[in-house]
Amino acid sequence: MDSTFRRTPNIHLQDLIDGLTSGNRVFLSRAITLIESKRVDDKKEGAELIDRIISNTGKSLRIGITGVPGVGKSTFIEAFGKLLTDAGKKVAVLSIDPSSSRTKGSILGDKTRMDELSKDPNAFIRPSASGSSLGGVASSTREAMLLCEAAGFEIIIVETVGVGQSETVVRDMVDYFLLLMLAGGGDELQGIKRGIMEMADHIVINKADGANIKSAKKARDDYKNAVHLFPPNEADWIIPVGVCSSTEKSGIKDVWMEIDKYQTHTEKNGWFAENRQKQAIKWFHERIQARLEETFYSKPNIKIEIQKREELISSQKLSVRKAVDELFN
Amino acid sequence: MDSTFRRTPNIHLQDLIDGLTSGNRVFLSRAITLIESKRVDDKKEGAELIDRIISNTGKSLRIGITGVPGVGKSTFIEAFGKLLTDAGKKVAVLSIDPSSSRTKGSILGDKTRMDELSKDPNAFIRPSASGSSLGGVASSTREAMLLCEAAGFEIIIVETVGVGQSETVVRDMVDYFLLLMLAGGGDELQGIKRGIMEMADHIVINKADGANIKSAKKARDDYKNAVHLFPPNEADWIIPVGVCSSTEKSGIKDVWMEIDKYQTHTEKNGWFAENRQKQAIKWFHERIQARLEETFYSKPNIKIEIQKREELISSQKLSVRKAVDELFN
Repeated sequence: MDSTFRRTPNIHLQDLIDGLTSGNRVFLSRAITLIESKRVDDKKEGAELIDRIISNTGKSLRIGITGVPGVGKSTFIEAFGKLLTDAGKKVAVLSIDPSSSRTKGSILGDKTRMDELSKDPNAFIRPSASGSSLGGVASSTREAMLLCEAAGFEIIIVETVGVGQSETVVRDMVDYFLLLMLAGGGDELQGIKRGIMEMADHIVINKADGANIKSAKKARDDYKNAVHLFPPNEADWIIPVGVCSSTEKSGIKDVWMEIDKYQTHTEKNGWFAENRQKQAIKWFHERIQARLEETFYSKPNIKIEIQKREELISSQKLSVRKAVDELFN
Repeated sequence: MDSTFRRTPNIHLQDLIDGLTSGNRVFLSRAITLIESKRVDDKKEGAELIDRIISNTGKSLRIGITGVPGVGKSTFIEAFGKLLTDAGKKVAVLSIDPSSSRTKGSILGDKTRMDELSKDPNAFIRPSASGSSLGGVASSTREAMLLCEAAGFEIIIVETVGVGQSETVVRDMVDYFLLLMLAGGGDELQGIKRGIMEMADHIVINKADGANIKSAKKARDDYKNAVHLFPPNEADWIIPVGVCSSTEKSGIKDVWMEIDKYQTHTEKNGWFAENRQKQAIKWFHERIQARLEETFYSKPNIKIEIQKREELISSQKLSVRKAVDELFN
């Protein structure tokens, strides 16, 4: 899936679009590789591609899933995805992991992790775009999401491992944000960043099976009490807290029922559409900002000039105001 | 305190610095007005001023206080501030309220609200800078904080009413972030934004007096349980939850004792200094970003061009990628 493979000579943009919109997963894959490319000519073609399918997008339900490593995200997505494909839905799974890189074999990794789903004709699994900046990776994932929608996928799952600010980034691109947790609290939560719990639309305690059932239910009750104390969210939605076992496939259907309820609720009160619009506008301004920064930080010597000033600022020898003035003069 | 009053002709920068560093509150006030000014010549002088006092700063303890309107922030700060000034400490109170404006009489408002403290020779109360952007107001408040430190103030309290993103902004400039709450949960929390609870270093249930005592203690216990489920913070600090009555002045000393404990704890584990440095570097990059945006958004017609594209993006007629490309070409 490297760039030489993608650039099959005789594929014209129109053919790519036709293949993609007919739901062909090979064309979808190629389209995603195109929009992820950093080559100047690819970028131009990618912009053209996205612009030509944009009116075909937005019809899916976008679900973000986060949780610390070890919480069982892949197993959960496998069980959850199969539930949906078995019900006849087309499901795409994308992921945001700014630390991943193609050469680490994350495609194989993902496909192995989601064995059944990867073989399902109604499913499409795509690993995280590689890239040095989270903003860039996030933007590629958003565009991949649009391409999946144009290809007729009805449920898009965006998974994140929660590196850096990736939870916030995922939350800003989905309709529903699901937090998977483990019973026990304390140590297991090390990886979850502060503020994420309150941002979730749903908390599910995974691995509620065998000897864990009791502690999972205890955790559920504790979190229910905690969630009750959180301020209400803009969707006017009380965060449900549930338990599930991805291996025993129990509680998975309940997760879907809550999501379905959320969609009905927010479509009725207007939040669903409002949130989508806000997200798109926010994305636009983030890309403007990213472009401004790219231009600025790529100036010759700028990194050295900044680093020099960071040291002076840290040791209280230079004020931030003067440092900025110097950089811009 | 308007600009004509400030621009007393014969005040030279050196005199301002001398007056300020001797602890004179009138000079401190003038210095803050100077750094808040948007006039080109004032900006130059303000940068010079900040740069000349910068090595004199950083020696205070910076405490952020937030809570919804009606939680009793002013009464709390009055009681808390008096406790500290009575112990011989010099206390400055600043505030961040991007919605405030001088003409609304917020100076008088603040001084009336904190009657005793405003008359205290060891206290200095300064209302929020006015300004259209939160970033600008925040930057002025940071600089005002530095000026207060240069003037020998040992405790700086930054209060915020929690408009927009102001809690996050305050949290990024203080050592300790205190969240005042009321018993009862639910409706009273409408104003607190999601994610703030988990970002607090301390939660205090105010108005624990009279008939409220029981429900306040109940709320404290509930929050204690909730806080226990939060992921650990970078300071390796378990958020204390307490009750107080600002009018009866009970529990106020306990708040100070926790803060003192936090300072000792984080000075020992290195977080105190590390956090300060991270905050300064982050501020630097935020100001770079703000300057880039100022330059970009002040271009002729840019607002119209952006608005036009926002509408097309909202109605899915234009992709974000193409919109950004168009703006930059």
